[in-house]
Amino acid sequence: MASERPLILVTNDDGIFAGGIKTLVEEMTHLGEVWVVAPDSPQSGMGHAVTIREILRLEEVPFDVSGVRAFQSSGTPVDCVKLAIYEVLHRKPDLLVSGINHGANSSINVIYSGTMSAAVEGAVEGIPSIGYSLLDHSADANFAPSRPYVRSIAESVLKNALPQGTCLNVNIPNLSAEELKGIKICRQAQGYWADAFEKRKSPGGSEYYWMTGKFVTPDKGEDTDQWALENGHVSVVPTQFDLTDHHTIGLLNQWDFNDAK
Amino acid sequence: MASERPLILVTNDDGIFAGGIKTLVEEMTHLGEVWVVAPDSPQSGMGHAVTIREILRLEEVPFDVSGVRAFQSSGTPVDCVKLAIYEVLHRKPDLLVSGINHGANSSINVIYSGTMSAAVEGAVEGIPSIGYSLLDHSADANFAPSRPYVRSIAESVLKNALPQGTCLNVNIPNLSAEELKGIKICRQAQGYWADAFEKRKSPGGSEYYWMTGKFVTPDKGEDTDQWALENGHVSVVPTQFDLTDHHTIGLLNQWDFNDAK
Repeated sequence: MASERPLILVTNDDGIFAGGIKTLVEEMTHLGEVWVVAPDSPQSGMGHAVTIREILRLEEVPFDVSGVRAFQSSGTPVDCVKLAIYEVLHRKPDLLVSGINHGANSSINVIYSGTMSAAVEGAVEGIPSIGYSLLDHSADANFAPSRPYVRSIAESVLKNALPQGTCLNVNIPNLSAEELKGIKICRQAQGYWADAFEKRKSPGGSEYYWMTGKFVTPDKGEDTDQWALENGHVSVVPTQFDLTDHHTIGLLNQWDFNDAK
Repeated sequence: MASERPLILVTNDDGIFAGGIKTLVEEMTHLGEVWVVAPDSPQSGMGHAVTIREILRLEEVPFDVSGVRAFQSSGTPVDCVKLAIYEVLHRKPDLLVSGINHGANSSINVIYSGTMSAAVEGAVEGIPSIGYSLLDHSADANFAPSRPYVRSIAESVLKNALPQGTCLNVNIPNLSAEELKGIKICRQAQGYWADAFEKRKSPGGSEYYWMTGKFVTPDKGEDTDQWALENGHVSVVPTQFDLTDHHTIGLLNQWDFNDAK
């Protein structure tokens, strides 16, 4: 740890053996000293969950990239960030990168995503942080065209200071290097999941459900991450953990709450 | 369902048998037709997690308030909101209330909280939504002084329109009715958990961890939820799901990303 190279923490939500995290680790070794702390199993959709009612496991494991130390945990992506800082590194890294997620985390998906929650947790801890996602859910997704973008965005974050409290949500279309049209800074598109549930019966006759659903975005803006991705751009959304709707404070101050006082 | 009274959905993260949800249901019966869809076990700290890799259970259960139908689910608070809309009510309720949580969800806790994630999910679905929390973790917390505030805030939300995309995060100090100083509209205080982990050994000799930690807020503002709560006020923070840091878009557009293009 006496290295003068930046200390880079890598995590994800697809689990430590996913293809996306290996690509991310390989790119980060060009920029600094890399440590991995990631879930021992897939944790997609875990959002900002933390493990407070169960125990956590943490153990060092081999990782298939030279010079990289890696730890797997039974916890969520946010647990992994906390364990990395307080039990593995014993200091805050200079950069936190999460991903590369197998599947999109644009629009409202940012709020359900374990990948992005790890990056947001990094921001809460004051660490420059980036979450990366490729728009391909498959286990054997092709991450090659993503590589130059992943590295150049991380380099930019190391060189320029991100504002305190803000991390980056990076999504990459599933296109060839030739088709990718470069980086576009965006806002999060308005959108939601029109959910549906598939009701089934177990062999024993009890009812259960699977969540399904379809992503819907009524947002026609050309400054959104959805627009950028549909038009071949790598989307970069500055993402914050202050959830206050500051504009609405003035409105609420005009309400008569019929206060007990 | 032919009633002209508002249709009110109640959920929480402490589980359907917690004291806080019973208080909340009782207060809501004064305002409308109440349905409960809540987790069958405690789900604190689940954040915005959704269950996409496991099955979900949902079953009607008795609830100890007259005229109220109640369902418990094996899922997270956010799962409960989705199941309620798409499998129980088959429409969007006029109001969604979550809680009353046993313990604070002010400052950064909003992001880890299952209670608030249920309210945020309501906002994503376009439903006027409120999360309530009492600053007392104990199972036998005294919710009586909270009652008039809980009801009056819900009445105000039913009467006035909340802006699309915004819900309310309400926290109530653990004080007597006489000590409570009324409602204050606030912003989310800057703060974080200085985490620690307690390392233990199992009887079999394997290592494991418990997450502990201490809440830290360096934010001295008198317009924050932390300040309001420490000074005896009920805090109300308008809370949004658009995580875009809009101010930073201009800054990032000045960066040279050393684009591959």
